This record gives sequence, structure tokens and C-alpha cells, in this order.
Amino acid sequence: MSVIERCRELAQFTEEPGHITRTYLSPPMHAVHERVSQWLVKAGCAVTIDAVGNLRGLYPAAKPGAPRLVIGSHLDTVPHGGAYDGPLGVLIGVALVESLRGSRLSVEIEVIGFSEEEGVRFGVPFIGSRGVVGTIDDVLRERIEPAIREFGLKPEEIPEAAWQQKIAGFLEFHIEQGPVLDSLDYPLGVVSAIAGQTRGVVEFYGKANHAGTTPMELRRDALATAAEWIGAVEKLAARTPELLATVGSLTVEPGASNVIAGRATASLDIRHAVDGIRRAAVDRAFTAAFDIAAGRGVQCATRVLLDQASVPMDPALTGIVERAVRDAGCPVHRMISGAGHDAMIVAQRFPTAMLFVRSPGGISHHPDEIVRAADVASALSVGRRILECWR
Amino acid sequence: MSVIERCRELAQFTEEPGHITRTYLSPPMHAVHERVSQWLVKAGCAVTIDAVGNLRGLYPAAKPGAPRLVIGSHLDTVPHGGAYDGPLGVLIGVALVESLRGSRLSVEIEVIGFSEEEGVRFGVPFIGSRGVVGTIDDVLRERIEPAIREFGLKPEEIPEAAWQQKIAGFLEFHIEQGPVLDSLDYPLGVVSAIAGQTRGVVEFYGKANHAGTTPMELRRDALATAAEWIGAVEKLAARTPELLATVGSLTVEPGASNVIAGRATASLDIRHAVDGIRRAAVDRAFTAAFDIAAGRGVQCATRVLLDQASVPMDPALTGIVERAVRDAGCPVHRMISGAGHDAMIVAQRFPTAMLFVRSPGGISHHPDEIVRAADVASALSVGRRILECWR
Repeated sequence: MSVIERCRELAQFTEEPGHITRTYLSPPMHAVHERVSQWLVKAGCAVTIDAVGNLRGLYPAAKPGAPRLVIGSHLDTVPHGGAYDGPLGVLIGVALVESLRGSRLSVEIEVIGFSEEEGVRFGVPFIGSRGVVGTIDDVLRERIEPAIREFGLKPEEIPEAAWQQKIAGFLEFHIEQGPVLDSLDYPLGVVSAIAGQTRGVVEFYGKANHAGTTPMELRRDALATAAEWIGAVEKLAARTPELLATVGSLTVEPGASNVIAGRATASLDIRHAVDGIRRAAVDRAFTAAFDIAAGRGVQCATRVLLDQASVPMDPALTGIVERAVRDAGCPVHRMISGAGHDAMIVAQRFPTAMLFVRSPGGISHHPDEIVRAADVASALSVGRRILECWR
Repeated sequence: MSVIERCRELAQFTEEPGHITRTYLSPPMHAVHERVSQWLVKAGCAVTIDAVGNLRGLYPAAKPGAPRLVIGSHLDTVPHGGAYDGPLGVLIGVALVESLRGSRLSVEIEVIGFSEEEGVRFGVPFIGSRGVVGTIDDVLRERIEPAIREFGLKPEEIPEAAWQQKIAGFLEFHIEQGPVLDSLDYPLGVVSAIAGQTRGVVEFYGKANHAGTTPMELRRDALATAAEWIGAVEKLAARTPELLATVGSLTVEPGASNVIAGRATASLDIRHAVDGIRRAAVDRAFTAAFDIAAGRGVQCATRVLLDQASVPMDPALTGIVERAVRDAGCPVHRMISGAGHDAMIVAQRFPTAMLFVRSPGGISHHPDEIVRAADVASALSVGRRILECWR
């Protein structure tokens, strides 16, 4: 059974028939665990489920006491999600262990299916990977305890979910969830860092007035101000290589066709691999907001809601991945992940690398999400070459 | 009792205590009619209420069969409105008749308090003035009949509300509801025309995508497209004298801070005294929408919801008003009304002129709306001089 066939089979285990919806420790996760366990056991793994709900299959090393190489991703989905976002990386891990056909390496291999990455059920993402790095705090623990008990697990054992042994590395295969590889016609992308991210809000306070009686030169139009600023943000991104800057939300008050806008509230999402570049861009975007507003007699207020530093992947492990990509005959394309992943959490404590698999059309968080069989074959070929480093 | 004191007294008759809210034929309109009738009768008028609810006070001419000069405005308000928008013009009419102290002119004078101008209760404005020009159609009549009966009037008499006699002219005094006179420091403005108006909708269909994984150059951002277009609309207005162009409403979907906007829907409100200039501007605004969208790989659709021609005031009557303004020692400032008024409806059939009284701060449709006593005195002085033309 191919990796893609397995992803499609797991997609049938859902909270909502007709859709792929599988949130943290929801009932269909039991069936997913059972099915993946069957494949893991058959491949020679000892399977456990830890106290945060991560499924873990351990494949022994040639010698006891060897370091552990972890391969995996997450098994939960967003509501009405796709079949590959998460499970692909777990089932590539399963297939890689199968490819060893019982032979032993100098590392033990843990295939991990994280219980939670998307943050849907509790509004907090990465619960599974927080568990293995030991960063589930008391507040989060208290919130998730009932769900853990209901699933048949013991919250008091959460501390034991954290890795105590020597970790040789964590390797996450994941669909790109974006259009870059598809636009370049590359099957794979080597992630060098997870981009840092700033989320903020910019509010413009003008003066609501009659659209028919207020001459253009006497207006203080909050929407026209916001529009000019959105253009400035776009230009800022255009002249800063690899900067992503997005205004995705804009609300206008009073929002009537015959009333000049008195207030406009815009979101700002800025991402870059280099924190200094990102923070400078945020400064420039906020300064532009104040300058544009001032030039129009409009008041402006800015707020930062989130300032998340960029997370570099481990250079040595990433070097191994790159060589494997090259040896597998694929173009080596280094790229930044603009989205967060479990790898971002694991990288806080353990050497981590990440390989993207092309998302045709860049479609993500949607039932139309697909992967190509040839690209998955390339990823498996890369994975087998990586394992050979510990032969 | 001054005109301003009377406006403030009428403001107490409201559907919502603590606010000025008086919609078409609402219960407090009875008290308004009663109070204004008292003043009219005392000034020598015979008072009637016609079948659409207009309060009408008739002051006789020197000789029977003389033409009629009508002075007035409306008595309804928007919800949470001001004290002067409408009543000012009615109570100036009352004061002008009072100023005659029983002397007769070569015209009879009708002071009219239109029952409905704002369009709040039935979503259709100008019901009062439609009644006197005889343009209430069967559809509207059917909708308003129950309200008319409930108020104690007879809908079958609506046709008799229409003026059948020779009308020398209709004169409407009204607050400006805008900041122009205040910004020029002029007490009064002579309205030469009510601007024509186009209302439309422009929709931009881009592609919703992940803000963290979609490079800037691969985006089809509906909000960024709309923002560029809003800037173009603003520039179009800036380079077209006296054109008013407003985007007052913009909705964005999905409207999440971390998702590139897939769809943006903007309103467009364009006004100008010259219909050809207005329609050309609408064409240019729509063309700009298509061009900007096409340059970004975004789809665009435009729709016209309203195309209302401009209404010129009567040149002869407006000339009389202008001379009176000059003779009263005020600067003569001709201006376009960007808002609709009863004068716009009456002008369809009868010679009509309109005089704006400065709105300090341009505040309108708001409890903070005010007028200055000196400006009202100037308006009364102008009105008395106009009446002298028929001495």
C-alpha cells in the first residue's frame, strides 16, 4: 500500500462525514492510531501512545543505548482539510522504516504521529510537539486534561512524554502548503528556517461625513487612508527580498456607501527568515501608517499582537538532507517556511531538519490538496539516503 | 420665540426619549403639527394637513386667485438626528409670514412642513414632496396607506394633496449639512442645482491563500487590488473639479489576518452637477477597476445600482434669491447640493430655489448639529427681501 493510498485511507477517519476534519484527540483519532499502529508493528516497531496523544513507533538500533532519529509529522487536521497536511510526513516515516526490511542502523528510529499541530480544538497549536520537548505549561495542561482523560490517557504522565534520550535529529517531511515549488517545477524543497512572524493591527480614525456634501479637500477619509497604506505595505514587501507582508482583514465604519469612512481597522502580517529584517519592516509599515494618516488629517494607532522569532533548522542535519536530495537526482532548493510546523517547536531543543514536498497549485487546508506520486517517491528516495548515513 | 428656540422645542417631540427620532407619521408628529399649527394660525394662516401628512398653512394674498408662493421644508428626522435638518426651513417660513404682520402680498403664501423626506420608515425618501407634485405611484401608495390611516388621514384623498393652482415658486431654506460654507466663512449659500448621483458596486475576485506561504509575486490579492483602485478613484475626483467620489464601504473575504483576501466588495458613490461629467467619471472609475484587476490577475465585476440625474434650480427664482442675499449684505456663494432635498422633487414641476444656511463644523444627521443665530437672522433678512418682490 503506497504512502498516498495510506493518506487517503486515514482521511476517511473524520468527525464530519464527507469532510476531512480530525481535531486533537477527537474520536476518529482512535481509528487512525489503530491503523498506523498496524503498519508500524508490521514494520518492526514497538508502538506506544504518550500522555499528550502522540503515536510513537520505536524501531530498534543495531546496539542498545544508541541515539534516536525521529521522523514524523502530525495526524490532526483543520476542519474540512486535506489528506496530506501532516499524515504525509508520518506515513513517509512508516515507509522508510519498512524500507529497512528489518536491518538495523546505528540509531534507533522513532516514527511519530503528533496528536495536534493545527490549534483547532484549544486555539493553541503544536500541543503534540510541545509534549515531546517538555514545554506544556500548567495553564495549557489544565485546559487539555479532560480531553486527555476522555481519550483514555493519563495527564499525570505528560512529563514522561518528553524525550530524555539523546536525539540524533528530528526529520519532518511535509507538503509545502504554498505554490513556490510548483511554480519552479521542483519536487522538493529543503527548509532552512521557519520564518519569524509579526501580527499587528493598524487603526485609522478619520471623520465620518456625508458623501454628497463634503468636498474632497475637506475629507478625512479613513478608508482612503487605509487604502494608501495597503499600497505602501505592498511596495515595502516588493522592495524587501523574501519579505511577506499581508493585509488580510480590513473593516470599515460606518461602512455605508453614502458615508465617508470614519474608521478603518486593518490587520498586518509580516514574515521573514531574518528577525532584524522583519522587525525593520514592521517599523517601516507602522511609520508609513502614521505618515500617510498625518498627511490626511487622520489619526492612527498601531498595535503588535504577536512577535514570533524565526527558527533556523539545524545546519548539519539540513546539510545531510541537501546531499540526499542531490544524490536522489533532484534540484536542491533551499526555502523558508512561512507557515509554522512541529519542526519549529522541536528545533528549540533538538537538531531538526525539514523537507517540503511540492503542493500542486499550492492548495492547502482544502479537500483539493494533493501530492504527486513521483514527488512522494523522490521524498522516499531522499529519506532512504538520509538513513544510510547511520548504516 | 426665535426660529432656533422653536426648532429646539420641536426636537423634544421624538419616538426615542433622549434622542431626536421622528419618522414619517410617527406619533410625535401629531404634537409637532399641533405646535406649528398654533404658530401658523397666530400668524394669520389657515392650517390643513393633507392626505400624505404634510402640514400646510395658507396665508391669503391681497386679491383672490393670486398665484401661490410656497416656503417650507420637512418635519421628519433621521434616527438620532439633529434639531435643524428640515424644521429650520419650516420655521423660517412661519417667521417670514409673521414678519408680514398681517399685510398682504400679490401672492398667497403656503408654509409647508413636509411629512417625510429622509426615507427612514419606508425606505423611500421625499414622500411629502412627492405628494404635492402628484408623483406617489400605486406601489408606494399601497405601502404607506396603513400608516396614513393610523395617523387619522384618508389615503383616498392623496390626489387632492397635489398642487393644482398656479405656483409662483417653492423656496426651501435648509442647513447645508456639509462643511463648505463654514470653511469659507459664509453664512448662506445659493443652491444652483442638486447634484446627480450614481451608486454602484465593484467586486474583485482574487485568490484566498496562506499569508505565510504565498510569495508576493504569486498572489492575487483582492484587498490590495481594491486598495489600489480606491486610490485611483480618489485621484479621479481630485482632477475633476467639483466631482465627489466616495468608496464608503469595503468588505473583505475571508477577512482573516493570515489569509490573503480572496474577495473584496467596494461601494462607489459619484456625484456631480453635470450629468455628462458624472457618467464619464463612473466610466473611468469602472475602467480603472478592470485595468487594475487585470494587471494583478484578479477578476472584476461592476454594477450600477442608481443613476439619478442632476436637478437644476429655477434660474429666475434663484436670481431673486441671489439679489436678496446681496441686498442683505451677505456674500453670494453659488453651490451645488450633493445631498437630495424636497426641492429636487418640487423642481420637477414648479419653479424652485434653495438657500443653504451654514452648518458649523459641517455636522449633520447627528444631535450635535447646530446653526448660528446670526446666520438664521441673515436667512430671515433674505426671506423678507424675497417676499418684497411680491409686495
